[in-house]
Amino acid sequence: MSTPFRFEILATAGKARAGIFHTPHGPIPTPVFAPVGTQASVKALTPEQVRAAGATLILANTYHLYLRPGAALVAEMGGLHRFMAWPHPILTDSGGFQVFSLSDLREVDDDGVTFRSHLDGSQHRFTPEIAVRVQEQLGADIIMALDECPEPYDRAYNEQALVRTHRWAERSLKAHTRSDQALFGIVQGGVFPDLREQSARFIASLGFPGHAIGGLSVGETPEERDAITDLVTDILPADKPRYLMGVGTPRDLVAGVQRGVDIFDCVLPTRLARHGTAMLRDGRRLNVRNARFARDPRPLDPTCTCYTCRTFSRAYVRHLVVAKEMLAATLLSIHNIHTLTQLAQSMRQAILEGRFDDWVAQWQQSQAGPDAAAA
Amino acid sequence: MSTPFRFEILATAGKARAGIFHTPHGPIPTPVFAPVGTQASVKALTPEQVRAAGATLILANTYHLYLRPGAALVAEMGGLHRFMAWPHPILTDSGGFQVFSLSDLREVDDDGVTFRSHLDGSQHRFTPEIAVRVQEQLGADIIMALDECPEPYDRAYNEQALVRTHRWAERSLKAHTRSDQALFGIVQGGVFPDLREQSARFIASLGFPGHAIGGLSVGETPEERDAITDLVTDILPADKPRYLMGVGTPRDLVAGVQRGVDIFDCVLPTRLARHGTAMLRDGRRLNVRNARFARDPRPLDPTCTCYTCRTFSRAYVRHLVVAKEMLAATLLSIHNIHTLTQLAQSMRQAILEGRFDDWVAQWQQSQAGPDAAAA
Repeated sequence: MSTPFRFEILATAGKARAGIFHTPHGPIPTPVFAPVGTQASVKALTPEQVRAAGATLILANTYHLYLRPGAALVAEMGGLHRFMAWPHPILTDSGGFQVFSLSDLREVDDDGVTFRSHLDGSQHRFTPEIAVRVQEQLGADIIMALDECPEPYDRAYNEQALVRTHRWAERSLKAHTRSDQALFGIVQGGVFPDLREQSARFIASLGFPGHAIGGLSVGETPEERDAITDLVTDILPADKPRYLMGVGTPRDLVAGVQRGVDIFDCVLPTRLARHGTAMLRDGRRLNVRNARFARDPRPLDPTCTCYTCRTFSRAYVRHLVVAKEMLAATLLSIHNIHTLTQLAQSMRQAILEGRFDDWVAQWQQSQAGPDAAAA
Repeated sequence: MSTPFRFEILATAGKARAGIFHTPHGPIPTPVFAPVGTQASVKALTPEQVRAAGATLILANTYHLYLRPGAALVAEMGGLHRFMAWPHPILTDSGGFQVFSLSDLREVDDDGVTFRSHLDGSQHRFTPEIAVRVQEQLGADIIMALDECPEPYDRAYNEQALVRTHRWAERSLKAHTRSDQALFGIVQGGVFPDLREQSARFIASLGFPGHAIGGLSVGETPEERDAITDLVTDILPADKPRYLMGVGTPRDLVAGVQRGVDIFDCVLPTRLARHGTAMLRDGRRLNVRNARFARDPRPLDPTCTCYTCRTFSRAYVRHLVVAKEMLAATLLSIHNIHTLTQLAQSMRQAILEGRFDDWVAQWQQSQAGPDAAAA
């Protein structure tokens, strides 16, 4: 099967890499941060605003779209790209994580998982084959094998679940038919190094065009997250893109890139935006509702070049938050997404220019330094 | 006092006029429909989106901004234009209508009105002088004299209120100091032709640079509205702009322009948008939530050129409405505002080209014809 996908590594710095993942809907410069459009909409933003905020790749959730409006409807409307008017690369998850975290009364067996919709209680079943078929109907560029994402500290359960996740990875590969989609396999294993190692070796052996690290950012410590990422990326083949699922603080982006991760996604920037919080590049957060911003004429982040920071004062954004105006979520989402896409882009540039170690040192210093932006 | 305001009438058709009202923040081509940004934000839209939807003038509400974030704060942040990043013309109302419709425990006397904030119950007082001062702090291009807007069918109360409204108009003119703002007077009088005539003659005699018809669109019939508009515009001087307050259905825009109105504003397009309703040019409305749109690949209005209609299907917008995505309100607001700004613009063009009677005949026919767009 010929493939329109190609991962080009342009430069490295230790384990960090700067590259391009070529897809049928255009190139994804890596490292990359992907904002999340759960229901085929990055919340509160038009696709034009998402693009202008620096996004080259977005994620949509298979579980949500399968339930509403339905994958067949999306296919009938020309697929996800056309439906939501995002002509650039899209990634869909397998639905597994949401089935295990959102749905009611789920029952897992070796063949798949039966669950009730969180919307209307209706009963549904996902198998690896169904998850692939649904994602083929949605039509994203990057799709994911169905996996089980268990509680990270339960050793016995993680051992069991890993067997299933590995069988499901094989079945997903076999079920996948669309050559214009790249199917990624997912490494699981909780916080247990030996399970993670075993999983990385097995998943890597199956010949996926890309690999993901799942089950992190679900309760483990940052140190555990870093250690597992390190361990797994040492095993996964270097010539294929690596995706750290659901991770999206500035700290975790930097730690991930240092450990050889290429792709990140997270709901954090848009979720924090809806709660009136601005993310700063150094990891700090501004609670924009705070009264000290009421008469502050400065932009959210004086060093930021996003539409929000070029156009509006903290005083105005605070007014919108306090007055519960929808525009608050829009302006903060633009800023937060821009912060993360530009952080990834800035690391990429540093790797390309052979100064990534300096970049990391400076970034770490900015964390410790005086809080100029938030002053 | 020299004035940067000039009302240029370029063409007429019966009582209808096409013109330009020149303001310090640029020209307003008339007839014009102004969307409403109650709290210094046209709900769910960036100023760029408001502009792209065809708006040349927007309205903001003095009552709301006085209470939150406060007029002094807006002044300190450089005034309303800069605060909300709308460098084009702005109109503020006097706050009177909201004091009488939103606030609690109001008490009117001949000097002014005392009321409690709908936000926190705090007590406040508006007089004509205070309403002018607050609007001077906000800094809009067009500001309004404080008036009383009583229930339209209560003859005795309308007689009383009219005396106050006329005294307040005189006091507002006297209190107004900023030469870069045009202060408009407001004609009241409920549904009573003799009161309306008396009010129009009195307000016209005071030398305002523009006049408004208030107290309509508050319960009277369309026929009463048309008759009063006709009567009042026969009296108001032809060389000054006329503003029909709070009116914004396609039907009322056409009826108003035919009767010599130049400026309209209404919350309808953005409010309907938040309830999942698309406005059509002919006055019909689409309830986008309707299941018949679930697989409809056409734009909301196939004849519309707005961003929403150029980019998205009814199926997608319906999905957003059903899934309660904020983007639904954004996309529908863009479409609804565009529909009304372009309706005004289309009438303007027809007046300029000497074919307004044909335009009206065609528009009336489109209302009676088969519902092609909504089919």
